[in-house]
Amino acid sequence: MRRVSFAGHECPVARGADAVGDVWSLLILRDVFDGYSRFDELQSGLGIAPSMLARRLTSLVDAGLLERRRYQVNPPRDENVLTPRGQDFHPVVLALFAASNRQLAPQDRSMILIDRQAGAEIDPVLVDRATGQPLDQLDVMFAPGPARPFASSTP
Amino acid sequence: MRRVSFAGHECPVARGADAVGDVWSLLILRDVFDGYSRFDELQSGLGIAPSMLARRLTSLVDAGLLERRRYQVNPPRDENVLTPRGQDFHPVVLALFAASNRQLAPQDRSMILIDRQAGAEIDPVLVDRATGQPLDQLDVMFAPGPARPFASSTP
Repeated sequence: MRRVSFAGHECPVARGADAVGDVWSLLILRDVFDGYSRFDELQSGLGIAPSMLARRLTSLVDAGLLERRRYQVNPPRDENVLTPRGQDFHPVVLALFAASNRQLAPQDRSMILIDRQAGAEIDPVLVDRATGQPLDQLDVMFAPGPARPFASSTP
Repeated sequence: MRRVSFAGHECPVARGADAVGDVWSLLILRDVFDGYSRFDELQSGLGIAPSMLARRLTSLVDAGLLERRRYQVNPPRDENVLTPRGQDFHPVVLALFAASNRQLAPQDRSMILIDRQAGAEIDPVLVDRATGQPLDQLDVMFAPGPARPFASSTP
């Protein structure tokens, strides 16, 4: 039943993946989360062609994850700042970071996550908000939500 | 300095994004996490062209996230099961799900995450493993790890 019910954009994973767009966009988001917002900062940091960066930024703005804010009038220059919706995607970048770093022994990691104030290393883990239980200790599955009860399985 | 130090595949976000590959691969992983492993199940569920699905499965196998296991000899049929490395990417799919669902009011959600045993709804949140503090309440940043100390910023 689920095969039909969650088709296409009903699925938040699909919608989220659509909003992010592609791998380059994830790396742009990573850098914006890290505090870089200007075109030239992003461009030199990512080593990406300017036209490609411009396209990706436009698509992230269109998806509502970034917005442009003018910081200089003459010549006109915009910086790219996160919207609240964009902020919601920070955990996606951090989860990708954590999944990937997990493959390496601690001494082999060239990049870690730290608390900017305390300086302490942070090890991100996904838990259930209510119980605090790590999700890798639970057997979780997707199920129909209120907007589409199990009973109705229209194509 | 970080702009140089974390270039390319030194960055776990970039490595992780590379391993996952693209949006289709994320959706394949979503379905495998949900318990679907056979080619025809995945194909009908995703509505993806068989040749495209075959290519994506091969690239997920090559990246070490899935492995093929023969479940029928004549005719030969393989199912696609998660490796431990693949399991590590479950939080990425769940974080994407949560980020995307967060945009909707609870009554507008057509898909939720539940605990398969208890049936209770799960709200995934990223916390620091040691302190349990939600990451959205911290100011986190990426920093050089043991394998590449801040002092060395070779290009």
